[in-house]
Amino acid sequence: MTEKKVPIVERILSANDQLAEQNKARLDGAKVFAVNIMASPGAGKTSLILRTIEGLSKDWRIAVVEGDTAPVTIDSEKVEAAGVPAVQVNTGGGCHLDAVMFGDALARLSLSDLDFLIVENVGNLICPAAFKLGVHTNVLVASVTEGDDKPYKYPKMYRNVDVLLLNKIDLLPHVDFGMDYFRRGVEMLNPGLTFFPISCRTGEGIGEWTSWLAARKAR
Amino acid sequence: MTEKKVPIVERILSANDQLAEQNKARLDGAKVFAVNIMASPGAGKTSLILRTIEGLSKDWRIAVVEGDTAPVTIDSEKVEAAGVPAVQVNTGGGCHLDAVMFGDALARLSLSDLDFLIVENVGNLICPAAFKLGVHTNVLVASVTEGDDKPYKYPKMYRNVDVLLLNKIDLLPHVDFGMDYFRRGVEMLNPGLTFFPISCRTGEGIGEWTSWLAARKAR
Repeated sequence: MTEKKVPIVERILSANDQLAEQNKARLDGAKVFAVNIMASPGAGKTSLILRTIEGLSKDWRIAVVEGDTAPVTIDSEKVEAAGVPAVQVNTGGGCHLDAVMFGDALARLSLSDLDFLIVENVGNLICPAAFKLGVHTNVLVASVTEGDDKPYKYPKMYRNVDVLLLNKIDLLPHVDFGMDYFRRGVEMLNPGLTFFPISCRTGEGIGEWTSWLAARKAR
Repeated sequence: MTEKKVPIVERILSANDQLAEQNKARLDGAKVFAVNIMASPGAGKTSLILRTIEGLSKDWRIAVVEGDTAPVTIDSEKVEAAGVPAVQVNTGGGCHLDAVMFGDALARLSLSDLDFLIVENVGNLICPAAFKLGVHTNVLVASVTEGDDKPYKYPKMYRNVDVLLLNKIDLLPHVDFGMDYFRRGVEMLNPGLTFFPISCRTGEGIGEWTSWLAARKAR
């Protein structure tokens, strides 16, 4: 008797990934485009979100999910002051958001009233890269003051994102940042990665980023 | 029969804390003073270590344990170029060092040939604060470019350290950093915390830090 070899392709999703797919289906059902913003502490996630709201809120209805490791409302208050609803997620000391937390946040939002949902992940260059949320675009905000070696030191994060913003370029004259070395590291990990040098302080490069984001939603 | 109530004071140590105490006993036995340096990515841990080596290596024998989430030797190479042995610990994607990893690093060092051991933890403001290593002093390096709200957002880290260095003060004229707001947050979480404003770039404040560290060893 000849044993038949049947090629079986199975994708075993982890529990988190399964929930992430459910979150995405929910967003797609409501035609909401979701963006997950990751960065180390102080790279400029909140400033970027405020600039993005400024650029897009004339044309689109936006909400923000604010992930924090401590029960603080500093960022949520800034977002709400910009006229956009914010949902706070406290990880209780945890160092990243996961699909369960994001799903809980979705349940607290009226998705049918939204076009864009921006997620501010916990400030951390390591673990957030390992937990899918179920968004459409994963964004990394780097900053020139962090130094040019970060792609080499945090490769998983740089490998897993769809777009890279390099913030604080207004400070380039005052820091030792080798742009070529930085970009070589990025290119090695994530060839052809979409890249925007920006300054949330001066507004430089923000228009290019918001145009790209709006076009990405329209795809 | 009268039941006796015996007051029992038990400190239940977690497995990690027990190993941390073993590490500390080992360091004490060899008269090695160990310092754990924590910070977010790019705040200046490696630059601080290089400045500290520069300041202390005339009088003391120093080694460095380099914690990295990825198998990179960028920091170890810089330390060895400064004439000091470095032991690399790769967390395999993990976001912090723990007492097991630190114990393994200690086993790879000749402690009897050392006075100071400097540990560069993984760049992360969250989890490293939760895992004792068994060192004598826990150091946090903040930087003015991260923003003045970090104590409020990462309270556990600010609460659990013995000394705070605020790096990159040469950039103060170019960033919006409210020193009073920052220091109020620190004081609320860790009253009387030893504090040194420094610039690893210009060397400002480094002498005060290394003098404090040398005095702390002598206590």
